[in-house]
Amino acid sequence: MDQQSKTKNQLVGITMGDPAGIGPEIILKALRGTKRKNIVLIGSLAVFEEEKKRLRINTDLPQIIDTGSVGKYQMGRVEKNSGVAALKALELGVTLLKEEKIAALVTAPVAKEALRLAGFSYPGQTELLAARLGVRRYAMLAWSPNFKVVFVTIHLPIAQVSRHITTAAVREKIYLLDKFLRLEGSRHPKIAVFALNPHSEEFSLGEEKKIAQAVTWARKQGIIADGPFPADSLFARGKEFDGFVAMYHDQAMIPAKILSKGKGVNVTLGLGKIRTSPLHGVAFDIAGKGIASASSMLAAIKLAQHLIRGSTIT
Amino acid sequence: MDQQSKTKNQLVGITMGDPAGIGPEIILKALRGTKRKNIVLIGSLAVFEEEKKRLRINTDLPQIIDTGSVGKYQMGRVEKNSGVAALKALELGVTLLKEEKIAALVTAPVAKEALRLAGFSYPGQTELLAARLGVRRYAMLAWSPNFKVVFVTIHLPIAQVSRHITTAAVREKIYLLDKFLRLEGSRHPKIAVFALNPHSEEFSLGEEKKIAQAVTWARKQGIIADGPFPADSLFARGKEFDGFVAMYHDQAMIPAKILSKGKGVNVTLGLGKIRTSPLHGVAFDIAGKGIASASSMLAAIKLAQHLIRGSTIT
Repeated sequence: MDQQSKTKNQLVGITMGDPAGIGPEIILKALRGTKRKNIVLIGSLAVFEEEKKRLRINTDLPQIIDTGSVGKYQMGRVEKNSGVAALKALELGVTLLKEEKIAALVTAPVAKEALRLAGFSYPGQTELLAARLGVRRYAMLAWSPNFKVVFVTIHLPIAQVSRHITTAAVREKIYLLDKFLRLEGSRHPKIAVFALNPHSEEFSLGEEKKIAQAVTWARKQGIIADGPFPADSLFARGKEFDGFVAMYHDQAMIPAKILSKGKGVNVTLGLGKIRTSPLHGVAFDIAGKGIASASSMLAAIKLAQHLIRGSTIT
Repeated sequence: MDQQSKTKNQLVGITMGDPAGIGPEIILKALRGTKRKNIVLIGSLAVFEEEKKRLRINTDLPQIIDTGSVGKYQMGRVEKNSGVAALKALELGVTLLKEEKIAALVTAPVAKEALRLAGFSYPGQTELLAARLGVRRYAMLAWSPNFKVVFVTIHLPIAQVSRHITTAAVREKIYLLDKFLRLEGSRHPKIAVFALNPHSEEFSLGEEKKIAQAVTWARKQGIIADGPFPADSLFARGKEFDGFVAMYHDQAMIPAKILSKGKGVNVTLGLGKIRTSPLHGVAFDIAGKGIASASSMLAAIKLAQHLIRGSTIT
């Protein structure tokens, strides 16, 4: 490996997200708290310059790959122009990641409705990433220093969750979580798997048996997994485990949002690449006001940098 | 009202729960931290005496209504004898509450499996209470100083929750919560109602419309309610609201257990009487070891006392 590619492999690319949201603001704020040498911004230079002025930041921007002017748009509004710009930055970021021009991708929040107006047809950024990288098995991890939880299902109506709880699905998430925890630095990670139903077996329609089979499989692979446990009973015992597997969105996101105290990171596992993002959305209600907290974005950048130092993620 | 009945109306009755669990232990520990004059224990004197010895507590027991010897049983085990004893104390407690011999009932945890062996056929203590008091509309509230949440559904498989989310059910819980919050001392309580599905409308199968209709109804009654809100998004805004309405067990219990930090209280609303209990179970794994925390039981007793001072609960 020559000197140039070595340098390239430390690069963290950050997509600007929806320019009408808090993305550009939290990126600029977060960069005040981290080393900028290996950072490359991906998005509209004009948007970042405008945001710099609004926030009265005097320091230079880090290097930037300019995706050009956005055209007319309003802060805090769903609009086609801002959707097109967000999508352009995202697609470019994914290409750079795929071609190993950057070692990690951090994505700022997008507004799905605006992306739709731009012709985007995926459920979210993660699904686009997986498609472009040709990956079918991946998982979302909500990360914070003290609570890490992977989702078996994510964007489903509650009524449809049960039928998606299969032994194979749970196995895969346990496997991906174990791999991540080792990459992150844990030698013998302990994983707790949540039950789907309240009190676990007591109100089960059979899903808990499937989860138990996945745990048994994991143990045979040498993974230290246990469960299913009633989800609400585990938080008194949180420190016994390095990671958790939750069955559905709110079961993971409610404790993740509470326990991460605004510093949570969304990590995509299974891509074979490092991708993180803040654990919140575009926050249109406070966009352009300069009051958004950058702590989740800062944590996302720092985690990406930490994982680059660790090894390649798979 | 004569002097005697006034005195009687201050009484808090505490049922011992399953003698093989941590109930007697946490009752005795909690009583060290509260005024005992208006406390009456309901359960086996022999069990409490035994527990006193085990915990090396030298002070006298408060007044007690002795339900007699339990017979043979082992700590931490599901057994018929202990189930029979727990049920006897519970039934007596409910009778005293119904007959207004006590002003509030605090129930220590029971083991449902042991109660079943004793012929008990209700899903839990709350359902027995409601039946004995002839009440059909009631609700469970998980209470702590900073987070109060009422459940629309409780003990159901996840797959069956959706069909139980009706406008009438949500309306009723909002109404009961508002009434409780006023009784507790809030003049203009603000209530936030959770969505059933992740991101609320985005993955709704129509349940969110029903929830919204209940919120509209509540506002027409002068109740300050808002929602449905995505449940995971609310915790950053927790201080804006005095109480929450959750759609199912884990959606309420996960944040309740985390945010109450071991001091949560289970309150039954709609009984027309005051009933509280600790927000945890019999904890058979640590029963008889003297290491159980009494903080949840202490909070349950103190809340009952506070509510008695407030007025009658309905």
